[in-house]
Amino acid sequence: MNLKNKNFINTQDWTLDELDYILDLASAFKNNSLSKSLAGKSIALLFFNPSLRTRTSFEIAMHRLGGFASIIQPGKDAWPIETREGIVMDQEAEEHIKEAVRVISSFYDAIAVRAFPKFQNWQEDKQDSVLTAITRWALKPVINMETIIHPLQELALMMTIKSHFSDPRGKKFLLTWTYHPKGLNTAVANSAALISTRFGMDVTILRPQGYDLDPQFIETAKANAASYGNAVTITDNIEQAYHCADFVYAKSWGSLNYFGNWEEEKNIRRGLKHFIVDSDKMKLTNNAFFSHCLPMRRNVKATDEVIDSEYSLIYEEAENRLYTTCALLTAIFGGAL
Amino acid sequence: MNLKNKNFINTQDWTLDELDYILDLASAFKNNSLSKSLAGKSIALLFFNPSLRTRTSFEIAMHRLGGFASIIQPGKDAWPIETREGIVMDQEAEEHIKEAVRVISSFYDAIAVRAFPKFQNWQEDKQDSVLTAITRWALKPVINMETIIHPLQELALMMTIKSHFSDPRGKKFLLTWTYHPKGLNTAVANSAALISTRFGMDVTILRPQGYDLDPQFIETAKANAASYGNAVTITDNIEQAYHCADFVYAKSWGSLNYFGNWEEEKNIRRGLKHFIVDSDKMKLTNNAFFSHCLPMRRNVKATDEVIDSEYSLIYEEAENRLYTTCALLTAIFGGAL
Amino acid sequence: MNLKNKNFINTQDWTLDELDYILDLASAFKNNSLSKSLAGKSIALLFFNPSLRTRTSFEIAMHRLGGFASIIQPGKDAWPIETREGIVMDQEAEEHIKEAVRVISSFYDAIAVRAFPKFQNWQEDKQDSVLTAITRWALKPVINMETIIHPLQELALMMTIKSHFSDPRGKKFLLTWTYHPKGLNTAVANSAALISTRFGMDVTILRPQGYDLDPQFIETAKANAASYGNAVTITDNIEQAYHCADFVYAKSWGSLNYFGNWEEEKNIRRGLKHFIVDSDKMKLTNNAFFSHCLPMRRNVKATDEVIDSEYSLIYEEAENRLYTTCALLTAIFGGAL
Repeated sequence: MNLKNKNFINTQDWTLDELDYILDLASAFKNNSLSKSLAGKSIALLFFNPSLRTRTSFEIAMHRLGGFASIIQPGKDAWPIETREGIVMDQEAEEHIKEAVRVISSFYDAIAVRAFPKFQNWQEDKQDSVLTAITRWALKPVINMETIIHPLQELALMMTIKSHFSDPRGKKFLLTWTYHPKGLNTAVANSAALISTRFGMDVTILRPQGYDLDPQFIETAKANAASYGNAVTITDNIEQAYHCADFVYAKSWGSLNYFGNWEEEKNIRRGLKHFIVDSDKMKLTNNAFFSHCLPMRRNVKATDEVIDSEYSLIYEEAENRLYTTCALLTAIFGGAL
Repeated sequence: MNLKNKNFINTQDWTLDELDYILDLASAFKNNSLSKSLAGKSIALLFFNPSLRTRTSFEIAMHRLGGFASIIQPGKDAWPIETREGIVMDQEAEEHIKEAVRVISSFYDAIAVRAFPKFQNWQEDKQDSVLTAITRWALKPVINMETIIHPLQELALMMTIKSHFSDPRGKKFLLTWTYHPKGLNTAVANSAALISTRFGMDVTILRPQGYDLDPQFIETAKANAASYGNAVTITDNIEQAYHCADFVYAKSWGSLNYFGNWEEEKNIRRGLKHFIVDSDKMKLTNNAFFSHCLPMRRNVKATDEVIDSEYSLIYEEAENRLYTTCALLTAIFGGAL
Repeated sequence: MNLKNKNFINTQDWTLDELDYILDLASAFKNNSLSKSLAGKSIALLFFNPSLRTRTSFEIAMHRLGGFASIIQPGKDAWPIETREGIVMDQEAEEHIKEAVRVISSFYDAIAVRAFPKFQNWQEDKQDSVLTAITRWALKPVINMETIIHPLQELALMMTIKSHFSDPRGKKFLLTWTYHPKGLNTAVANSAALISTRFGMDVTILRPQGYDLDPQFIETAKANAASYGNAVTITDNIEQAYHCADFVYAKSWGSLNYFGNWEEEKNIRRGLKHFIVDSDKMKLTNNAFFSHCLPMRRNVKATDEVIDSEYSLIYEEAENRLYTTCALLTAIFGGAL
């Protein structure tokens, strides 16, 4: 399968066959060890926001494959960057994203980007303008390392699911909102809805009133589900949601209704701590597995008992980030195992 | 040609043959791909100031050649460093540059340094004391990554010029000052004057009254020019300067007369925005190429129309940073293509 | 000798034969050049505090051996981390050390940790809780890059000593406290007492009243000494301490009695500047060598005359950090020269 130089912006842009090819390649990397198919290749990792797992998994993946990853943190170890076009650049930004991207992509063989929302205005944030601008100007393939979706986490999640369910179709996937002291990004939640429906799971989203995900992702998830004859259930009924679930995936996110008004939203959020994943809730399931994308606040999103249980797959999902990244990079650079 | 362990502090310390050798090697790297001649070699990149192109071009160059670059940011991820001698070190600095440099140069095979002026006192800044101290104590070759001159940018600029003019001698090179909200370093301007005269170009420097470059660089540029029978024209007449130019190189810098009095200088600089490179000015030239070292503020130093034109070589010059760095490192480490 | 996957937390956990094996391997690396025995291997360097020599020596060592080192700075380029167990994580920390360590050690082949005391409460700091927690959760070997001891510096120091004394047994090793404007970590002083006694040297610790090292290290040093029939002399008599010394090792540290009350301690410390190592004191010795772990404040801990003398081994000890690290990594990863 030739995936050379294909952008990895959204799993929806890839066919199911292409995604399966990556997941199979990732399993091969998990069992296997070493390949030097990326010798002399390099990737620029643009972090507009901090990272632990994503950065290190890319660094190691590139090294194992014989290549090299540079970390670039605009506004931190490089200057601030302008993304708007046609502007007179007499303010803070020293460089336009067009120049930065053209130059970076003349140096490197691929570009990966993390650019979170600014959390002031969702209508602006949902334009995903940094990633869009970079993709527009890049001369080399672009990989999304989390913006308003997190497709790399999708690969790791689905690799984990498929290693426990030979056929995920029809299995009940519960995406549950949980409390967190901050109003977090919806990216992983959006992505969980996309990838679980994409692989034919029976998806329920449990969230409090006022915490709906953006319609663009829900509509896509529903269309994904419909192609299998499934629906997507959205509810605030905790018992019904957990009932007979096969896989419980926890994530916290801030309310899109209160975007930018975080002090006001905080008061509502504070009343919702009972969404924590605990053993009592897990008993309602069909011996479900539990996972989360990490980092995770213990005894806030889930109890120690759940996190440290035998059905917890958090470390497996995290480790799969490395293998799915190895697979994706190999495919995009046109290498072979 | 044996350039092994030769310092690269100033292009004036290198013969024209040596510079031509580097430029030819750079062209070979541009057409070629890979060499492992630096296997096991490492370089320390000391950044007293931030960098995007310089850092990443070194990282990639070293990786492509089989070697390795470390980034060291004194005062940021390492402790502050003392450069004066004989001093009782009871203030902020935890380490003397002698120890830092002796140790770094016992670990690494070369040291590269970026140390901008402090912009308080030009008479002090023009001593280039950090680079001088490092060169004094280093046990391995030292490369200047921009201090009060930027010889790496010179290599990229001249590689770009030579790829468009088979013989640059006698071609009119216009170095034009432009407005910028900040009082910037004169390094790239000094370097442009040095390298263009060195290769026999007919050089005009267009700058407002009060924005002369330091005499040490102008005198050297004039001496370079004289060896070809040329002069260096310095003017504030925009029309005359652009007239029949073959290559327009833009750069902003702060007035040396107001060094440290930047608030006062700012008022003067604000009245000089009309030095912007635009299409009307470019029409006065002999179908000149345009370039700039990047980063560049759009519609401040040059208009979008100029920057995005077919005669704009900004991306080519930036990309050439990578190939000239590959060439320089190969030569200094005694490797071969 | 099989040292594969052995933690390097404290040299006391290693037999003398194992330490000698590492030191011999280090000498081989010093004379030798290159090995690719760590191809595809990677190590995570966790820096809770800044570093120059330690970071760069690991980066280069891994590269020379064919492997790769990632730098992780919790709270700086990653989120703050919780180390306590059973806690409701509703404060600053976004991730528990258990998850961070489990994930990092599923990605990397080893973990190295620098975590200094917090300098508020010695009874807490002496628990070495960060390193202990990481060692508890790590799936891969852990290396101490300085916490309340600095075993890597011990290796470099002993390699330096052994290259000047074919048999260090019975040689008089003077560890002298010196003034420094800040109340520093006792780690290197503790380590110097441990490693010098371990190799049978006749150890004197010169420190002002009130500047005793923690009993846990003194007792271990005494037990080490006793196994050779030696004692450890602790004194504040400068002349007696320097008399007939063969090796003078300088280090400053803050008083454990005033831990957390640094303003009060500062007044006492200020009266102790005469502990500086100078030529007059060195004349009392048996033509002793001088060394220090670096960084070192000149004319505060020792005079320029001493530091720049022929008997000063500061650069040799620093350079040996690279070779001992190469040796340790090779042994722990199960590679061979």
